[in-house]
Amino acid sequence: MRLILIGFGAVGRGFAEILRDKAKDLRAKHDFAASIIGVVTATRGSLYCADGLDIPALLSAAKAGSFASYSASAGLRRGLSGSDMIKLGAADALLELSPTNLKTAQPALETCYRALDAGLHLALANKGPVALHYADLQAQAAARGVQMRCEATVMAGTPTMQLAQEALAGCQITGARGILNGTTNYILTQMESGASYQAALEKAQALGYAEADPSGDVDGWDAAGKLLILANALFGSRLTMSDLQVSGISGISADDIHLAREQNQHYKLVAQASPSGGTVKAQRLPATDPLASVAGTTNAITLETDLLGAVTLIGAGAGSRETGAALLADLLAIHRGACNQAGASA
Amino acid sequence: MRLILIGFGAVGRGFAEILRDKAKDLRAKHDFAASIIGVVTATRGSLYCADGLDIPALLSAAKAGSFASYSASAGLRRGLSGSDMIKLGAADALLELSPTNLKTAQPALETCYRALDAGLHLALANKGPVALHYADLQAQAAARGVQMRCEATVMAGTPTMQLAQEALAGCQITGARGILNGTTNYILTQMESGASYQAALEKAQALGYAEADPSGDVDGWDAAGKLLILANALFGSRLTMSDLQVSGISGISADDIHLAREQNQHYKLVAQASPSGGTVKAQRLPATDPLASVAGTTNAITLETDLLGAVTLIGAGAGSRETGAALLADLLAIHRGACNQAGASA
Repeated sequence: MRLILIGFGAVGRGFAEILRDKAKDLRAKHDFAASIIGVVTATRGSLYCADGLDIPALLSAAKAGSFASYSASAGLRRGLSGSDMIKLGAADALLELSPTNLKTAQPALETCYRALDAGLHLALANKGPVALHYADLQAQAAARGVQMRCEATVMAGTPTMQLAQEALAGCQITGARGILNGTTNYILTQMESGASYQAALEKAQALGYAEADPSGDVDGWDAAGKLLILANALFGSRLTMSDLQVSGISGISADDIHLAREQNQHYKLVAQASPSGGTVKAQRLPATDPLASVAGTTNAITLETDLLGAVTLIGAGAGSRETGAALLADLLAIHRGACNQAGASA
Repeated sequence: MRLILIGFGAVGRGFAEILRDKAKDLRAKHDFAASIIGVVTATRGSLYCADGLDIPALLSAAKAGSFASYSASAGLRRGLSGSDMIKLGAADALLELSPTNLKTAQPALETCYRALDAGLHLALANKGPVALHYADLQAQAAARGVQMRCEATVMAGTPTMQLAQEALAGCQITGARGILNGTTNYILTQMESGASYQAALEKAQALGYAEADPSGDVDGWDAAGKLLILANALFGSRLTMSDLQVSGISGISADDIHLAREQNQHYKLVAQASPSGGTVKAQRLPATDPLASVAGTTNAITLETDLLGAVTLIGAGAGSRETGAALLADLLAIHRGACNQAGASA
């Protein structure tokens, strides 16, 4: 499977490392092999080679800060755009890993449509296009006979989408509620241990969990974006941000947290969706709720189903390798589908 | 997909009800349609019709206690064995739902081999064959180009096997630990609420969770059978009961439970496996362990993975409809034609 990567930040590098480390294993276990033929970045330049780029050299060049240090070789082309690379027609799939824009989803949205139009499978870690245009992208993928997958956009590699869409395919999912933002969960967990909101936030920033401007996390917008993706993927809805009621954790005081603990309850920023809408807000959960004991940067989701009742999945919600694993999972699912078609026509 | 069911107890009836209730939905959503062409039972008789049995009539006859009350129609045959039905060559898949025998796996094991030899896909709710002969059955399925699936044998329809084998296909699973027996978990939860072991056991028996002879549950053997299935499926091991150290909960006193609670810990019967062996034993878990808050008859499993760390799945562990849902999930996976057999085969 020949891949174009748009973006080569922490997630792209995490994915490339997995491909490098697991190549032999993936071939043996799943008859799967992938090569990165193109990488486009905003600041490091772009590289393209239809025969496949050298992954260790690519990682070294990225670490050095510029693809200029990647050695020239036969067939290597520099400076192409994603659109140029798609037009060259050698790729099987495009990975959209550029920064999330929850307002317009651009410029990634345009790239996604170009990839699908050209018959490429699409896997995203960028939340924007699927948060804002899930149904349209899915319809376009179906029309072109390719897959559009976005496991990496929700709970990193913890396989939320595959759980809901494949493993629970026989069930109707009627609701979803989860802890979808690790930064706020880390802050709330620190506050349970006695830290003030400000001290917990500063610690989260020092550890790289929260950004200098933490509002995307602490005001609930990151969780809201993920909730939109889930709602539109699981319910076939066409919800937008205006269908969600979003608030964050900045109004929660140390006193609130301690009062809750005295009653054996935990404050969590809960993102909750039904087919008709959703909310993101801080809630007190009893200790018996599977979401209540989810601590630190861990994420979790409870899906309500018709046949099984509640099914809860708990796991990593962030991390470059963990998110890279989600992209690999999407590609393996695409590979299984391709094998499936090959088998059907045989 | 034309199905033969061996056994038509609570699980078989739960599955048939789902097929009846979801037929339209499954066709629309997944282009999937299934008919039950044969049912073999130990005490109600057997029915076969290559054009498909009438599911409501089948359920009524089962409720009445004998298939004699199922109306005769063109093509209906009574009294055939499973082996007879397989030989007739009309079926696509066989569902082995007869009672579990963890000593010899018979007579189900023989039926499973006959089905695979005849090129039928196989889905099991009966734990015996996969607990004792997972690797051989999987190899035989692969040799015949069919699938052997057993989602229903572990945690009912909570999709443990699909999570491990498909959604986490890109990860190496290095360990598994779970609460795999709902009866003992119910008893331990009741004891935390103040009941004695004896009172909790009697309540579990009154509710139908525990049998008159509860030893299969309370001594850990049910959990051990499920652990063998998991170990052999996830690690490609060939473990047998002699590789497991198995103990139960009958040695746990109300005092033990309360002492643990005072230290914010919970007693759970934990089944734990690595590629080289496993244990089933009562353990004290800190409240921060995702398994600790799993209460009542709910089941849970934590898989340790190389790329994601711990991934935990929590959900129903029993119930006729919940287990029937697992059989449907297996058939949908077969329908998708996932060509990459279990990770164990590599």
